[in-house]
Amino acid sequence: MAEPLPNLIEEIVADNGNDDLQSVAESLLPAEHVEIATLLESLPVEERLSLWEALPDDRKIDVLVEMRSDPREVLISATEDDQWSKILTGIDAEDLLELMDSLPAKLMELAFQALDDQQQGYFRDATQFPDEQIGHWISHDVLAMPLNAKVRDGLRRIRRNVPQHCDTIFLINRSGQFSAAVKLTKVFGAPEHLPLVELTEEFIPVIKGSDDSTTASLQVQRSGFAALPVVDDTNKLLGRVDILSASELVNENYERQVMATAGMDEDEDLFAPVAKSARSRALWLGINLLTAFLASWFIGLFEATLQQVVALAVLMPVVASMGGIAGSQTLTLIVRGLALGQVTGANLKALMTKELKVGGVNGVIWALVIGIVAFFWFSDPLLGLVICLAIFMNILAAALAGVLLPVVLDKLKIDPALSGSVILTTVTDIVGFVAFLGLGSLFLL
Amino acid sequence: MAEPLPNLIEEIVADNGNDDLQSVAESLLPAEHVEIATLLESLPVEERLSLWEALPDDRKIDVLVEMRSDPREVLISATEDDQWSKILTGIDAEDLLELMDSLPAKLMELAFQALDDQQQGYFRDATQFPDEQIGHWISHDVLAMPLNAKVRDGLRRIRRNVPQHCDTIFLINRSGQFSAAVKLTKVFGAPEHLPLVELTEEFIPVIKGSDDSTTASLQVQRSGFAALPVVDDTNKLLGRVDILSASELVNENYERQVMATAGMDEDEDLFAPVAKSARSRALWLGINLLTAFLASWFIGLFEATLQQVVALAVLMPVVASMGGIAGSQTLTLIVRGLALGQVTGANLKALMTKELKVGGVNGVIWALVIGIVAFFWFSDPLLGLVICLAIFMNILAAALAGVLLPVVLDKLKIDPALSGSVILTTVTDIVGFVAFLGLGSLFLL
Repeated sequence: MAEPLPNLIEEIVADNGNDDLQSVAESLLPAEHVEIATLLESLPVEERLSLWEALPDDRKIDVLVEMRSDPREVLISATEDDQWSKILTGIDAEDLLELMDSLPAKLMELAFQALDDQQQGYFRDATQFPDEQIGHWISHDVLAMPLNAKVRDGLRRIRRNVPQHCDTIFLINRSGQFSAAVKLTKVFGAPEHLPLVELTEEFIPVIKGSDDSTTASLQVQRSGFAALPVVDDTNKLLGRVDILSASELVNENYERQVMATAGMDEDEDLFAPVAKSARSRALWLGINLLTAFLASWFIGLFEATLQQVVALAVLMPVVASMGGIAGSQTLTLIVRGLALGQVTGANLKALMTKELKVGGVNGVIWALVIGIVAFFWFSDPLLGLVICLAIFMNILAAALAGVLLPVVLDKLKIDPALSGSVILTTVTDIVGFVAFLGLGSLFLL
Repeated sequence: MAEPLPNLIEEIVADNGNDDLQSVAESLLPAEHVEIATLLESLPVEERLSLWEALPDDRKIDVLVEMRSDPREVLISATEDDQWSKILTGIDAEDLLELMDSLPAKLMELAFQALDDQQQGYFRDATQFPDEQIGHWISHDVLAMPLNAKVRDGLRRIRRNVPQHCDTIFLINRSGQFSAAVKLTKVFGAPEHLPLVELTEEFIPVIKGSDDSTTASLQVQRSGFAALPVVDDTNKLLGRVDILSASELVNENYERQVMATAGMDEDEDLFAPVAKSARSRALWLGINLLTAFLASWFIGLFEATLQQVVALAVLMPVVASMGGIAGSQTLTLIVRGLALGQVTGANLKALMTKELKVGGVNGVIWALVIGIVAFFWFSDPLLGLVICLAIFMNILAAALAGVLLPVVLDKLKIDPALSGSVILTTVTDIVGFVAFLGLGSLFLL
């Protein structure tokens, strides 16, 4: 990009109203699609639309493909109907797969018709796999040759065109099944009459179209190859996944995880329309409200106690906070372990034992610290004892819930990164309040 | 890997004590280093050490390199002194750069001596850059040729050896400055006497050694090249960053972000020794305890009010929870925007306006809902009004803090992913409690 992103954002925001984003659009000509996409996402809606209109039509699809869904849909719905035939020129099956969830039915039909027969076929093949499976995301731009091809044939094929991030020729048999891979660098320099099979790699991982897309992508990243072959259940070669697509899928999965901790999805737009953004966040607030009311209800059981020992009310946030933090540490560690395939039935007991011990140690330490502070603050040794016991119990409960919750959610096919923390804090809030106020009723009345 | 990870973990955990992890180690021979590393990380300490000892010495360094620091250090400290000379055979500068933070001084010296002169030079060069800079992570395995080289020379060089993930020859001038890049696929098939400069790529991004390592890695991922050249301030070619290293750095950065939300670092070991794990988590618990006591102190200011209106104590968690959740949503969105370079001074005001509007809408909705519930629960219209106002104020404050906090932290070079949420919830707790109890004192006494 000619200028760094922040300068461009500033220039456009300052300039808008002066109508000539044309010059900015021209300065963006050498930029990569993804850079323009990032810039568009960074702009408030009015400026975003102005820059979008100033972009040349033949780049618009490539830029849309690189954008997150929410900001992308703002541009799509603002584009006039009669523009689309120009914009859709040159769209291919992979582009359409990226965009399909963002396009209204009418445009989807138009875009599909803009594909040639081969691309329409590719599109149909890909949509047979749901988007959590790698088959949805494969590229068909492969160097595939018959098993009996010679180096001479390979060279001829390579000279015609080598796709990006492609370092091997795939050899397939007569039924189209994947058989072996030959590195391009080995083909050059080999005698022309040599059969390619003599040059095959000893080992190349082969991916199934139905494999989980993140797992398969990580496999591509670390394989050492620029791309891996993808086959169907009968070993027929479907296409390939290159390291760039793999990295994009992995990055997207991480981003999903980060956003999920706040109950949002990775497509959330910085400058979403207020109504849309408020709606998408309201659900999460509502769920959390229910859990907060639940915690309040448990507190309400101890109204009489609270009335007599108001110090309990003052210290409630300490009990809740320590349980929540301790639990979220265990939870985060286990969620990562599950994502990496490192947490299984076989080591779950050992993990639980370790986390309970860690919870025990921190439980004792912080229970004593907090007990002593409470004792001095309110000059009440029994209050110190009560909060000491409650903190210890809550930190242990947090460790237990932090291990078990994500494992159970994972078994139920519920994303523990999204729902784990809200359920966990509900557990620690309730255990904490009930232990604290219950012990308070016993000892302090 | 011969068997999937969970099966291997089960087999080893079940088998241990029967001493023969030798057979498991043999079944792992065809597995990739990173797969063995992941398996070792998944095992409780005793089993981890048994498998480690059963691994062939010549794979140990490569496996260590792929492991996270904490589990890696368990293995390093359990390995006898006399084993190291065998293990360190074949270590190179890149391996040592990965391991340097995990090796005690004595082993570090031994490992450095195991490098040949060239590798020692590479190691010294890399350590001139701190590990947040991409210069620390470059590979020196480049195809570099003088500017006047011909296709013939290029072919000779390529036939000798092409490193993994390398798709270009870098052309350098007499002072070693990077000048241009030629795609390998263009070299093959070109006339032998043609100067390579005639085949150069029109545009290839060039990275500075002092560039931020995550930013530079993202640039490599999306460049379309398998690797990009890295230069110093005088444009001298230092080496290259390939798409595999780039992906590893990007993944590590995401993992850091995910773990930071719970105050942990990405090197945390599933089976860390209890004392170590308890210690590393205690700090975060302690910081949160201080903020919880601060919130308690503010509540304590209203003891008299709480004593008279105990319903306020019962509803406190609702006020705190709604502020915390609303704030963390804004915070998460802004932290991502900062990481992508999308949030800058130029669009900050627009962002703030939008977030305040979203907060306003959700504030009004949830304030009314909660006010009505509180009214019916405690049959007290004034209490309903008090919590209604407090919720609205707290959600607005949350939106404001959610935008400003990460921006300020980022300016102060403090990681907002780590410290943002703890400061934010402190703000929303205090604003929420003071508003709620303060209004309660005004209206309900």
